[in-house]
Amino acid sequence: MRYELYYWPGIQGRGEFVRLALEDAGAEYLDMARVPEADGGGVAGMMRLLDGDAIACPPFAPPFLRAGRRLIGQTANILLYLGPRLDLAPRAAAGRLWTHQLQLTIADLVVEVHDTHHPLGPTLYYEQQRAAAKRRTRAFIAERLPKFLGYFERVIARNPAGGTGLAGARLTYADLSLAQVVGGLRYAFPAATAAALASCPRVRDLHAAAFARPRLKRYLASSRRLPFNNDDLFRRYPDLPG
Amino acid sequence: MRYELYYWPGIQGRGEFVRLALEDAGAEYLDMARVPEADGGGVAGMMRLLDGDAIACPPFAPPFLRAGRRLIGQTANILLYLGPRLDLAPRAAAGRLWTHQLQLTIADLVVEVHDTHHPLGPTLYYEQQRAAAKRRTRAFIAERLPKFLGYFERVIARNPAGGTGLAGARLTYADLSLAQVVGGLRYAFPAATAAALASCPRVRDLHAAAFARPRLKRYLASSRRLPFNNDDLFRRYPDLPG
Repeated sequence: MRYELYYWPGIQGRGEFVRLALEDAGAEYLDMARVPEADGGGVAGMMRLLDGDAIACPPFAPPFLRAGRRLIGQTANILLYLGPRLDLAPRAAAGRLWTHQLQLTIADLVVEVHDTHHPLGPTLYYEQQRAAAKRRTRAFIAERLPKFLGYFERVIARNPAGGTGLAGARLTYADLSLAQVVGGLRYAFPAATAAALASCPRVRDLHAAAFARPRLKRYLASSRRLPFNNDDLFRRYPDLPG
Repeated sequence: MRYELYYWPGIQGRGEFVRLALEDAGAEYLDMARVPEADGGGVAGMMRLLDGDAIACPPFAPPFLRAGRRLIGQTANILLYLGPRLDLAPRAAAGRLWTHQLQLTIADLVVEVHDTHHPLGPTLYYEQQRAAAKRRTRAFIAERLPKFLGYFERVIARNPAGGTGLAGARLTYADLSLAQVVGGLRYAFPAATAAALASCPRVRDLHAAAFARPRLKRYLASSRRLPFNNDDLFRRYPDLPG
């Protein structure tokens, strides 16, 4: 199966959680943002599937995945679908549901990260909401960041399979997503993230181990991995606390 | 199976999406917020499961469900689990994933509703963020509310099974959740919601049909259904646009 991933060009964003799973599994996929518009790629190709009248099950927003005749939206839902197919999810149903639950908690954290620079919503530019962003970032760093990372640390520590990941004995897509979040948090809030990670050694190690995997190392060194930047989910603004 | 639902007392909140599914299915469940603390209920019973050292797979936050020996967190994940068991999800795997995708989109809308009164985050009181709340509410009403409701209208209109709900020929848990959101939006933003619903007749009808179901009618008339209130997800503040 050759998958097609549809997402905005130029940013890692939520698409990156899907990319990391596909890359780590060595799956065959097309990142449609890099495919010419004449071949159904680019923003035009994506918008056709989002807004087209003939799409029976339209996604609300990118990212979404084309898998054969199916169109699957919502990042966590895409990973729920891909997990077993890429061998990145536990085999038992209970383990799969638990992995998905963790992915949804990672998604909650990602929303709060996004809200640090867009507290007044996605319809205004950052420059229109700087003061509110400063207050929200302060609260995020003081309370939410350590709470979320401490939670994931506890989950790894208690993993009944004794693994070094969040769920089960082997690596899952949720581990890859958490590693991506740690990388993003380090970019956006370097000092606060270092401080929070000081008491979360397992989360720190999970990040290092994930990005040391051969396929992900190659991916990170490739042009397919976009650099962090300030149009993205994780942003570094010098006028915000970090 | 007798389910145990753990959630904050006194509010509908995210717990209500689970309650509506359980109530509509006539499932046997205990709303643990109403169970005495001596019997493992109340906030104390909930906190024991959230914070207890012996919980192998701890939820990050309420609501969560105890089903036998399993503890399942994240609203959409609970419904993913309950859906087939309560006969509130399509039978085919593709239909289940689509229903879940819609539920996650409803969850995104719910986050944005919450952010209208808490744009600076969950760690500050509303009274500490009134000015920001006013700006965020204005943007939500002008752009996000019609965008979300218009999306769900389109999904119902295109439902390949020709049903009056979001997915498949029969009612799903996502329909119940969307009905709950419509009720909440009407409470929080009466004028704006009426205006948006004027061009979304299918969403309006879905709301009416869901709450006309015999079990849900009985539930709404019972003391188990808590009234909307301003400690809750959907809030009506006279100083915010509505």
